[in-house]
Amino acid sequence: MAIANVTIVGLGLIGSSIARAVGERLPLVTVTGHDASADVREQARALGLCDRIADDAADAVAAADLVILAVPVGRMADAARVMAPGLKADAIISDVGSSKAGVADALAKALPDHIVIPAHPVAGTENSGPAAGFATLFEGRWCIVTPGADASADAVATLGGFWEALGAKVETMDPVHHDMVLAVTSHLPHLIAYTIVGTASELEEVTESEVIKYSAGGFRDFTRIAASDPVMWRDVFLANKDAVLATLQRFNEDLTVLQQAIRRGDADKLEDWFTRTRAIRRSIIAEGQDDAAPDFGRKH
Amino acid sequence: MAIANVTIVGLGLIGSSIARAVGERLPLVTVTGHDASADVREQARALGLCDRIADDAADAVAAADLVILAVPVGRMADAARVMAPGLKADAIISDVGSSKAGVADALAKALPDHIVIPAHPVAGTENSGPAAGFATLFEGRWCIVTPGADASADAVATLGGFWEALGAKVETMDPVHHDMVLAVTSHLPHLIAYTIVGTASELEEVTESEVIKYSAGGFRDFTRIAASDPVMWRDVFLANKDAVLATLQRFNEDLTVLQQAIRRGDADKLEDWFTRTRAIRRSIIAEGQDDAAPDFGRKH
Repeated sequence: MAIANVTIVGLGLIGSSIARAVGERLPLVTVTGHDASADVREQARALGLCDRIADDAADAVAAADLVILAVPVGRMADAARVMAPGLKADAIISDVGSSKAGVADALAKALPDHIVIPAHPVAGTENSGPAAGFATLFEGRWCIVTPGADASADAVATLGGFWEALGAKVETMDPVHHDMVLAVTSHLPHLIAYTIVGTASELEEVTESEVIKYSAGGFRDFTRIAASDPVMWRDVFLANKDAVLATLQRFNEDLTVLQQAIRRGDADKLEDWFTRTRAIRRSIIAEGQDDAAPDFGRKH
Repeated sequence: MAIANVTIVGLGLIGSSIARAVGERLPLVTVTGHDASADVREQARALGLCDRIADDAADAVAAADLVILAVPVGRMADAARVMAPGLKADAIISDVGSSKAGVADALAKALPDHIVIPAHPVAGTENSGPAAGFATLFEGRWCIVTPGADASADAVATLGGFWEALGAKVETMDPVHHDMVLAVTSHLPHLIAYTIVGTASELEEVTESEVIKYSAGGFRDFTRIAASDPVMWRDVFLANKDAVLATLQRFNEDLTVLQQAIRRGDADKLEDWFTRTRAIRRSIIAEGQDDAAPDFGRKH
């Protein structure tokens, strides 16, 4: 299947990055953008983000062969419903949400007569909004596609080819397994980071000013992901509640083990644990998902 | 007081960075290096790290006006004892340990007749060893000096001036307060990162290969600090046990609150919390302890 027209609904960090990436890498594809916020649409126009920014959702998708919903996961169903009247019968509808089982259900219900193939590009930054996006965001990152049992192989291949054209690597996965994998690799890390940054800012014994001054000792790294979009993350935790709570329980068990090792002065247990975790980092660098340059004293 | 000769004991990341920084910024100061490991001494010689690398600790410090112990905090007392016979009577002895109250006691006992002024440069990277150091590591970072009640103002000013010459900003603090501040800004973040990386690598439902592939969703940031030196960090947790366990308890309380909010679907509580933590990051950037460039899709 050929894609001549793409519509992006939601022009924040991810949506605007897709628009930019299509503009650079697929110059023959026409990109239409829409956002429910008039302010965001205005910013998108000022940035020259798409070939056209449409004020109306149904109008925005009228010519689309592929529609990508790039809105918080709690807003997917509503976004799908308002655009539904404008959709072509054979358009592929996809999304970029960080949880997939709930989104797949919501989109299937909102668009029972359309081709829905949920997807999740595992990429992002701590910044939000249409100005925060950039064309290379997906390069070398994985995009996980979670087609339902009834999705045609042709449509799945078309969506996968689109993401590969933007520089991503594509993997197909069951949506429930996706949600467990991302609970570990993304949702739990964000929850922990949000927690510790909150804890540090409310201690009586240490002032917030001290926390900020001496943050280069490690705390700083957590503030980066704890600065991610609050509404997006609120929705992710609500949508992926079960998997997040399950992995959180495992984390709590491990934290209790280390807490006890510290209390008892069990030096060997601590050293063994810390040696094991070092190996994981080497694998991440080898897989190209991070680089080896030391980053604590970072200068860009 | 003038410093013509500096000796660095321990030539890992921090010690070798001090050697490089002195070489670049204080070319008239003679630097002698020593490490208990013959292998590290050999590497240091091959790297041309100091004016001289001494095989014997007492010999290494014989001419020193300032000695800096850059060894894991559990080894400070032993390192002090073996060099003690070589020390000049008026030499200033300092260190770079990440916990201060215990180190101050240990050094005071090991060197009862010498001028001991503990210090902690809040800087580092996830890499270890003599090859990992670099001259700019301390630029713009804070060095916390924790002098005892009997330390002369002159000696404290000399040590502070040395760190300022390496590019650091200097603050004086009570050692017990230092340990509480660093428990929050450095030790707890490392403990949490070590925990979550361990948790993620041992789940039955998600393979280690999946954790590595999809780490760009947030997990990756934790692996960076969980790759820090295992022996150094084992010693930090044992040396600063009380403050670490106290802040860990506060973290656990907060995590329980967020866990409950997720379980109950309390969207407002989550969004409020995530909005509050975003502000801390802005302050850290404003204070120059991190930069604003988005780093999730990092390329150096």
